[in-house]
Amino acid sequence: MKIALIGGTGSIGKGFALRWGQKHQIIVGSRGEEKAQAKAAEYTGILKDYGYDANITGSVNSKAASEADIVLLAIRYGQIASTIEQIKPGLAGKIVISVVVPMEKDRCIIVPDGVPLEISTNSREDYQADYFCYVTPPSGSAAQEISPMLPEGTELVSAFHNVPAAKLANLDIELNYDIGVCGNSMHSKNIVFDLVRDICGMRPLDIGPLEASAMVESITPLLVNVAIRNHMKDVGIKFVD
Amino acid sequence: MKIALIGGTGSIGKGFALRWGQKHQIIVGSRGEEKAQAKAAEYTGILKDYGYDANITGSVNSKAASEADIVLLAIRYGQIASTIEQIKPGLAGKIVISVVVPMEKDRCIIVPDGVPLEISTNSREDYQADYFCYVTPPSGSAAQEISPMLPEGTELVSAFHNVPAAKLANLDIELNYDIGVCGNSMHSKNIVFDLVRDICGMRPLDIGPLEASAMVESITPLLVNVAIRNHMKDVGIKFVD
Repeated sequence: MKIALIGGTGSIGKGFALRWGQKHQIIVGSRGEEKAQAKAAEYTGILKDYGYDANITGSVNSKAASEADIVLLAIRYGQIASTIEQIKPGLAGKIVISVVVPMEKDRCIIVPDGVPLEISTNSREDYQADYFCYVTPPSGSAAQEISPMLPEGTELVSAFHNVPAAKLANLDIELNYDIGVCGNSMHSKNIVFDLVRDICGMRPLDIGPLEASAMVESITPLLVNVAIRNHMKDVGIKFVD
Repeated sequence: MKIALIGGTGSIGKGFALRWGQKHQIIVGSRGEEKAQAKAAEYTGILKDYGYDANITGSVNSKAASEADIVLLAIRYGQIASTIEQIKPGLAGKIVISVVVPMEKDRCIIVPDGVPLEISTNSREDYQADYFCYVTPPSGSAAQEISPMLPEGTELVSAFHNVPAAKLANLDIELNYDIGVCGNSMHSKNIVFDLVRDICGMRPLDIGPLEASAMVESITPLLVNVAIRNHMKDVGIKFVD
């Protein structure tokens, strides 16, 4: 399978390139072609050190999207509209995966012992109140924002939001995560389930239609808070029964 | 510690009574005194079978709240206003724990293969699209709705949302869950952390102030979806690093 990683030169893109590059063809997309090619060479070199003869190339985002079978959006929430405008001509009929999470670091007001107290994010008070928060988009989630921007016949699947980038990109680490998947077509979801299983230590779980995506996206700022406030690092999630 | 379980005759109340009843005094609260007393006797009997000489009594909610040190609200979202109105006189200066989650089962429109299709919750089509959804309250979360209704000096802590009731109430089951805790006072959060640790197999994690509560509350409908759609049962959560 040919997988384009749009915005694939960032930390989460690196992880997908190194994991999927072990068995799929990867096109690293970026706004600049040179940067994309440099990263593609870097990822190819890392996989070579691990014994994989990977097929990883670099292109501008629009070319990466048009040449791929699967297009993963490894971009920030604020980049959605401009990025999709660029890559739209190459998306028709393809499966698009969104890992996008709208989140912000907020100041907040805490009320220790009943007295309201505003604490800035840089405070060094004994109650460290800074935390990350999910910022619900007008349509309900990042996935629901992206969906109407795609050309007809494109199938959007929302997944992989809760994976720590640093661990995904570290091939010495054995992963053990559950991946919540939302989407409105069983056909595309089944293909994404297989892409989840292609990464050793990941289990795909069907969460529901795209409309359920906010519940998965909002776990990401929660995981950041869990890490910050409990002396943990690169936290992911498991569903236990 | 004396713990009142407001609405404690329901399934989640039973679990807390059986777990905390092993080392704390429990007052089961209900709208009807007879029902509360019957449930208290039932829970005492179960604990006796497991070798515990528990102190569990039953009262109307208002009396349960006024006699306790800690008051846990084991009620539905729609019951918040009327319940707090009843118990408010007994809450001042106490720690109140909210496990409340606003969620609804929704019809939804899915788009298999690009064709919009409305599927009702009772549909038996091959794509079962019914799912549960977090319903964000006007203030942001159930905890933020409850907080301003409490008397001055009361400390609200939001926790235990993601625990499956059936497993909490089954003493033959070894639990293994992480419990996200939100609140604006370290004093009350530390007491709740200890109450989490009092239940074998539970680990407390600080998530942030009350304003972060929506991210924990919204995991509950997600867990229901995970169970329904992936042939799992009574699903809980673990944060892994």
